[in-house]
Amino acid sequence: MTENTTDPSRIVLLGLGDMGTAFARAWLAAGHPLTVWNRTASRAEPLAAEGADVAADPASAVAAGRLVVTCLFDDASVGSVLEGVDLAGRDLVDITTGTPGEARARAEWAAARGARFVSGGIMAVPPMVGALETGAYTFYSGSEEAFAEHREALSVPTGARFQGGDPGLAALLDVALLSAMNGMFGGLTHAFALARRSGVPPKEAAALLEGWVGAMLSDAAGGFAERLESGDLTTGVVSNLAMQSRGLDTLLRTAREAGVSTELLRPYADLMERHVADGGGDQDGAGLVDRLLEDPA
Amino acid sequence: MTENTTDPSRIVLLGLGDMGTAFARAWLAAGHPLTVWNRTASRAEPLAAEGADVAADPASAVAAGRLVVTCLFDDASVGSVLEGVDLAGRDLVDITTGTPGEARARAEWAAARGARFVSGGIMAVPPMVGALETGAYTFYSGSEEAFAEHREALSVPTGARFQGGDPGLAALLDVALLSAMNGMFGGLTHAFALARRSGVPPKEAAALLEGWVGAMLSDAAGGFAERLESGDLTTGVVSNLAMQSRGLDTLLRTAREAGVSTELLRPYADLMERHVADGGGDQDGAGLVDRLLEDPA
Repeated sequence: MTENTTDPSRIVLLGLGDMGTAFARAWLAAGHPLTVWNRTASRAEPLAAEGADVAADPASAVAAGRLVVTCLFDDASVGSVLEGVDLAGRDLVDITTGTPGEARARAEWAAARGARFVSGGIMAVPPMVGALETGAYTFYSGSEEAFAEHREALSVPTGARFQGGDPGLAALLDVALLSAMNGMFGGLTHAFALARRSGVPPKEAAALLEGWVGAMLSDAAGGFAERLESGDLTTGVVSNLAMQSRGLDTLLRTAREAGVSTELLRPYADLMERHVADGGGDQDGAGLVDRLLEDPA
Repeated sequence: MTENTTDPSRIVLLGLGDMGTAFARAWLAAGHPLTVWNRTASRAEPLAAEGADVAADPASAVAAGRLVVTCLFDDASVGSVLEGVDLAGRDLVDITTGTPGEARARAEWAAARGARFVSGGIMAVPPMVGALETGAYTFYSGSEEAFAEHREALSVPTGARFQGGDPGLAALLDVALLSAMNGMFGGLTHAFALARRSGVPPKEAAALLEGWVGAMLSDAAGGFAERLESGDLTTGVVSNLAMQSRGLDTLLRTAREAGVSTELLRPYADLMERHVADGGGDQDGAGLVDRLLEDPA
């Protein structure tokens, strides 16, 4: 059933992939009136049974409520699904994965159509949605007024953190955190490979890795931030890049000796070596941050 | 003053770099009789003032005690410093940084000279040594009998964890943990670079990174271990490599858009793409571990 009058408490959700479906279930469980649409209509059937209204097309979905949430395949899908749909007076909250630049362009696109725009970057996988004890949250940025008006609804599926008026900021923070996570995954991958070569049981390796990498994460994140804020990249450094670079040589030699590919270790070692060669050996890892901005490769 | 008789409670330490000096101070503070030697003799002077006996050469140092600890520049230095020194009846504990293969060869070398051998891998920077509340520890492996006899002395500078009879295991675990840490550092470096491009204050970025990467570390280390132990790399996977690979494309596009080098992101993305192309898309990151063993590059 599609509601054809605008209901201020109603949430309209376009896109029922795993993440969209998880958001829908969280809103239904919390008693929010919900209208859903998905290109493949069968994805909506289980939600209809749980109380969602199913719209026949994007235009009639958008007509049903003021808060319109898009959770689609990519940013281009947002443009094509909403092509020709009247967005005047709507608040578009786009939680589709994309780049900061795409979010900024989409904000202009929405403004030209008379809609307020908020972009979201979800820091969770679908099973974490709707379970606030998991600590899952979503970054939001863009129209602060629109966010404030819908804060309660947006805080149901995951925690909601408003980061500022730049509509690209939510995606930027999302991508920054996921990029750091992938670096850490790469490090774990290499470490587990070394452990397997030497018959160390994976669970023993996991316990050691969790303790060590966790302790170093906390030191490094805070230490990098301190040095980046002060601008003095050598303050309080206990192990400078000249020393770390020597240490990395032992890590590379160990990998070769064990027949483990060095492909995940080399780029950080190479970056460090370049920076030490250019005179940055008395800095610590914080000195490499701006290097990535100077040498975009 | 060099003691020329063997004292069973005396510790002999060869090598007074930052780490050797930190170990020496911890032993002196705990009241251990200590004989030190260093190629550059001036490094020993402050320790002499704190109660250490200073030996004129490695041979007279080794003559003074049964427990001989080496903390030198590299494994080759251990061989050259102890060249021609009588090691019969000594317990050689080598905490010099090196590869597992070097430790195994050094163990044979020590056995041929009548010494028991233990290799150590220190999981600490010098300021953490002697402060047990920091949780710093050293992996040891090799002769279990020698370790057991000196466990108390070896537990003074940092915690001491005996890992097994393979003399290469301490270095292997040390390198595995440091490799994982460097992957994590690379991830943080990239994330801070993105944050700087968008004016996010480093301390705000640090707090977000610490929370997110820490939570994911704990999930990933345990999850990888479970899948590697069961051999089923698809069980319990909430975000498979096919999905993660699409996500990595957004991370790469964001970096390019922001003028941040992709050099630290690309290798993990490339490895994943290769594995997905070969049919591993339904696995999670644990599926990449053995890949590093199959394609040593």
